[in-house]
Amino acid sequence: MTYAVSGVFCASATPLASDLSPDLAAFAAHCHALVQDGCDGIALLGTTGEANSFSSAERRAILEAALSAGIAPSRLLPGTGLANIPETVELTRHALSSGVATVVMLPPFYYKGVSDDGLFAAYASVIERIGDPRLRVILYHIPQMTGLPISHDLIERLVTAFPEIVVGIKDSAGKIENMEAMIARFPGFAVLAGADPLLLPLMRLGGGGCITATSNLVARELAYVFRNANDPAQAEGVAAAQARINAYRDLSNAYVQIPAIKAMVGRRHGNPRWVRTRPPLLAVSAAEEADLVRRLDDIDTLFPGAPA
Amino acid sequence: MTYAVSGVFCASATPLASDLSPDLAAFAAHCHALVQDGCDGIALLGTTGEANSFSSAERRAILEAALSAGIAPSRLLPGTGLANIPETVELTRHALSSGVATVVMLPPFYYKGVSDDGLFAAYASVIERIGDPRLRVILYHIPQMTGLPISHDLIERLVTAFPEIVVGIKDSAGKIENMEAMIARFPGFAVLAGADPLLLPLMRLGGGGCITATSNLVARELAYVFRNANDPAQAEGVAAAQARINAYRDLSNAYVQIPAIKAMVGRRHGNPRWVRTRPPLLAVSAAEEADLVRRLDDIDTLFPGAPA
Repeated sequence: MTYAVSGVFCASATPLASDLSPDLAAFAAHCHALVQDGCDGIALLGTTGEANSFSSAERRAILEAALSAGIAPSRLLPGTGLANIPETVELTRHALSSGVATVVMLPPFYYKGVSDDGLFAAYASVIERIGDPRLRVILYHIPQMTGLPISHDLIERLVTAFPEIVVGIKDSAGKIENMEAMIARFPGFAVLAGADPLLLPLMRLGGGGCITATSNLVARELAYVFRNANDPAQAEGVAAAQARINAYRDLSNAYVQIPAIKAMVGRRHGNPRWVRTRPPLLAVSAAEEADLVRRLDDIDTLFPGAPA
Repeated sequence: MTYAVSGVFCASATPLASDLSPDLAAFAAHCHALVQDGCDGIALLGTTGEANSFSSAERRAILEAALSAGIAPSRLLPGTGLANIPETVELTRHALSSGVATVVMLPPFYYKGVSDDGLFAAYASVIERIGDPRLRVILYHIPQMTGLPISHDLIERLVTAFPEIVVGIKDSAGKIENMEAMIARFPGFAVLAGADPLLLPLMRLGGGGCITATSNLVARELAYVFRNANDPAQAEGVAAAQARINAYRDLSNAYVQIPAIKAMVGRRHGNPRWVRTRPPLLAVSAAEEADLVRRLDDIDTLFPGAPA
């Protein structure tokens, strides 16, 4: 199956300066490291990137920092979905004006119990107001944060109304059955796993790839699984790669996930300032960080990962 | 008990023009009608006001429209809490710069499962960055939308750290037991009911008043209950007033509440354009509106309300 969007995309974390403003230089360096690791692209400003903890001006600056550092616009998939339509339109237009055509778009996430008709009206209004045929939208299914599941009937209506524009979904709910049903019902619509352990099963079902948090750390393994999932000759290497991915995921989930990922990224880059988060998220404590580093060393011994 | 904030405040709805921009003239007229009805103030840009469906620029324009129309700054309690801290600071500073000191502040509502430490850090960061001793903050407990309950321990920490600033809470969760416990634990901290049926029991417990949706329609009755709740000589009038309030509330809850309230406000002002909502909320259908008008007529017959 050919998809408009396919590959391993990093739900990149966002480093912060001491005043908790985005550390744009550290972010740009991280983006380059992710491409070096084998990421096809960077889904910056998602949940892991603390996007909704930044102002629109900060979000524009973060995207511009990646572009200025030489990351190709085609590799950048910023999150642009806010609770309100006008600022979602504005952020998405800013991305398009920078040559960044593909965005990951949350539904407007304040109200709960919203009907599919209401969510369709919101997405349609955003797409029509933008009015740019270059736009490519990846829907974002993360009901544990939004309370607003993206139903299959809603997808059906959106891909029918905007077949060139609504090209895929990031499914962060962690249920392979939901992904399998979308692959079956919507040929050519890219289903991207938001949960790392599901990359291998998803690729064996013909999925489009992933946008995950541990790709900040183990993108090499994710890229290996993505490329070789359906090659029986690589089954052993694929299993080893997925085991390392899962170990990282399990470790981050033993703490509050996003702060734990940031602490691990800090260790990776030898930059302890990466540990900072913006409220309401809080950085891991020094004790947690020490514990986490010790357990990371164990993982590196027990799960060496994909073949070199 | 003396409270810094006390009375009947309207969680005012926001009328929209045909392009779904805020209809500022209709909004200003509605504010005057609410004051005429007996509202002590207007808690504009809350959940009923579809605040999070507007951009920050639109929110500033809505507040400015009420001020320009001659509503006293001391009567305006705008919602200024967004998912991110910098724009919450910016919106709140804008209110203060217009002489509006009291705001209703949601917690940063994207992430779920956030700790009290994280919510404390977020509120404290906003208050400290604003750095204005005139500021008065009403916390906003509406877990059915935010997924982030405001715990009593969090209130304790906030009123201890900012005793002059954190002055009350809007409790929209609809449990009188929670309100009673806060009244007992935090003397001088104004507990405001977000659910209309609870105004009378709350006032009998010594509460601070209310910020509710049906006050767009029956503020006269709410003001009557507020003033006379503890006067045995007025018990009959108070019961009649509360019965009318409850009938309006029940009627709005028979539909999607906010669109139903807007349709009823439209009927009140003889302005059918009030029915418009911004996605993801959808206006009531023509059939629903006809049904609603018929049932409103029944209420007006069955529940005449407070004594003139």
